[in-house]
Amino acid sequence: MKKVAIVASGIIKFNKSEKPLESLMLSSIRPIFENTKNLKQEDVDVVLTSTNANRNYLANIISELSGIKPKISHSVESLCNSGTNSLVSAYAYVSSGLADVALVTGADKAENPGLVLHWDMSRGEYQHPIFWSSMFTSAHMRKYGTTLEDLAYVSVKNHKNALDNPYAYFEKSFSLDDVMNSKNLAENLRLLDCSMPCDGAASVVICSEEKAKKFTDNPVWISGIGQKTISASFTKNNDLASMESTKSAVGDAYHMSNKTADDIDVVELHDAFSICEIIELEDMGLCQKGQGSKFVRDLYDTNNNKVNPRGGLIGAGHPLGATGIAQVIEIYQQLSGNAGKRQVCNAKTGLVHNMSAGSTSSTVLVLES
Amino acid sequence: MKKVAIVASGIIKFNKSEKPLESLMLSSIRPIFENTKNLKQEDVDVVLTSTNANRNYLANIISELSGIKPKISHSVESLCNSGTNSLVSAYAYVSSGLADVALVTGADKAENPGLVLHWDMSRGEYQHPIFWSSMFTSAHMRKYGTTLEDLAYVSVKNHKNALDNPYAYFEKSFSLDDVMNSKNLAENLRLLDCSMPCDGAASVVICSEEKAKKFTDNPVWISGIGQKTISASFTKNNDLASMESTKSAVGDAYHMSNKTADDIDVVELHDAFSICEIIELEDMGLCQKGQGSKFVRDLYDTNNNKVNPRGGLIGAGHPLGATGIAQVIEIYQQLSGNAGKRQVCNAKTGLVHNMSAGSTSSTVLVLES
Repeated sequence: MKKVAIVASGIIKFNKSEKPLESLMLSSIRPIFENTKNLKQEDVDVVLTSTNANRNYLANIISELSGIKPKISHSVESLCNSGTNSLVSAYAYVSSGLADVALVTGADKAENPGLVLHWDMSRGEYQHPIFWSSMFTSAHMRKYGTTLEDLAYVSVKNHKNALDNPYAYFEKSFSLDDVMNSKNLAENLRLLDCSMPCDGAASVVICSEEKAKKFTDNPVWISGIGQKTISASFTKNNDLASMESTKSAVGDAYHMSNKTADDIDVVELHDAFSICEIIELEDMGLCQKGQGSKFVRDLYDTNNNKVNPRGGLIGAGHPLGATGIAQVIEIYQQLSGNAGKRQVCNAKTGLVHNMSAGSTSSTVLVLES
Repeated sequence: MKKVAIVASGIIKFNKSEKPLESLMLSSIRPIFENTKNLKQEDVDVVLTSTNANRNYLANIISELSGIKPKISHSVESLCNSGTNSLVSAYAYVSSGLADVALVTGADKAENPGLVLHWDMSRGEYQHPIFWSSMFTSAHMRKYGTTLEDLAYVSVKNHKNALDNPYAYFEKSFSLDDVMNSKNLAENLRLLDCSMPCDGAASVVICSEEKAKKFTDNPVWISGIGQKTISASFTKNNDLASMESTKSAVGDAYHMSNKTADDIDVVELHDAFSICEIIELEDMGLCQKGQGSKFVRDLYDTNNNKVNPRGGLIGAGHPLGATGIAQVIEIYQQLSGNAGKRQVCNAKTGLVHNMSAGSTSSTVLVLES
């Protein structure tokens, strides 16, 4: 198994616009070739596109418009963790030796499919993600005494972090009162507990160890990968105060990288809703089970931005196919010392957590400088 | 790089039906678990779905309905070679060591998108594949003197081969006159020169060398892989009597497997139209350039079914996302001695060729018993 490094990235400001999906992707790819020393289109032998949009032959269209004639090109779809699925797929190509350099680009528009889970009859009328979020929230409140104020801290913290992220959808801070008084969408779920669908695109280049030094002096290594699919439908999740696929994936990622939660300096996790951040911190061992709320409050009180430094999904917005890649870019920038105002001091080891549909599937990555 | 084997397959009769895509996929998966010794759902750690249908989270839905909780699950799309793209992706997972056992399932319905290339403005009004096929045909006729009768032999031969394939869409033979007199759709292109969109599904299981012996006594090894993307739009193909992506892909596949065209005992190639078989035989070195027509006539005259023994796309039908996987299954069955009436004698080494959109991209695989 060859070592695989992240060597370049490009991202656009998450927004809402009239631009087509393809333009968004290309706008995130262009700066990669402009800014990466020695990287030419002819170096790229894999192009994978990640999106929930209904497109055909998108990876070929993006390849042609980018001037790339890769060996391998196709689209990858797995709802909200399409981005990390495409990244892990590219990792497999490089690690197996089938390819040397892979471009992975993800994009979605706010109105693209994937947000409402029409196929899931187990949800009855409640096919919008706010309903599983509401159930997770209520279960965690019952079991661990989590309060609506605890949840509000997640949103306040992540919106605050997003102020230092020039690519975030939100550009303003919210107070605890703002969140507590925002519109109630479902039981124990307010508007400002939710991440926002928006337009966005993000791209990364990964490559083999031999190629990495040609393109950068600061590669970041993908040292741990864990993925797990429990189901497609929500009723298969037995304990609603926990995420089974996340626990499985993080165990595999720690094992592969020979790291533990104690080694993690910075993390981007999938805060589709406030409750997700609390449960995921617990399930990934970053705090004890039931202590997620306290952990978030401590981060807020000490002005510590090590969890979702770019603002997470709540602060940065959630363009489905781009999200996983944007998370990877944040940790890549943190570990290569290029995170600007968001820089977490001495960050050497980072974690990415990306999931779909109420954690029916999860991806966890360990990255190292 | 770990060795990777094909160890099981399932396929349904290609047809037109009212059944949803998901049912087709599941019908091709069920016999795999019924017929493969020791293979249990819990052995499978990758589920990849290949389709042109507009679906979200399909790989998770298929996983759940099949009783599988894989590590990795997502959909792969690349038009007509989605099937081999998903297979190569699964190969990369197993070969890299990220997974041990992968289920790859492909399906499409006749009416699914992917047939008409709406995005390709370079085609003007001629976005249906019959128009690139007509241009390929005319170019080959001008350059090499290929005749309409030569083309008809491809169709007659492949429909004849399909009679021995119980899963083929067509169940009748056609005479040379039938093809010559079939409806003219475009210049030098008749209805019976075309493959037919239809419903179909096909699934294979691939795994690491260590696992292979647990599941079968007759594994077939994936020893060569070549893939190449030239473009998405048709105008990028410079020589219309040749397929640039196919030439590149077959060179890489032969190189990786340390085989040449002389070693190939049996081949499934992408005869979307009659002219494709002729050009591909030439471009893959199975005969000299310009000799494809003669080669096909010789096969027909000597009753030799080594090229497209299952009937190819013309005889078996073309359910886009299933086609590449059905081609792989045919060569798997041939090399494991399980091709029934279609069995090519002493077949040890086989070739699969799968392409998209006028050969703007191609996949070539070398398989060995």
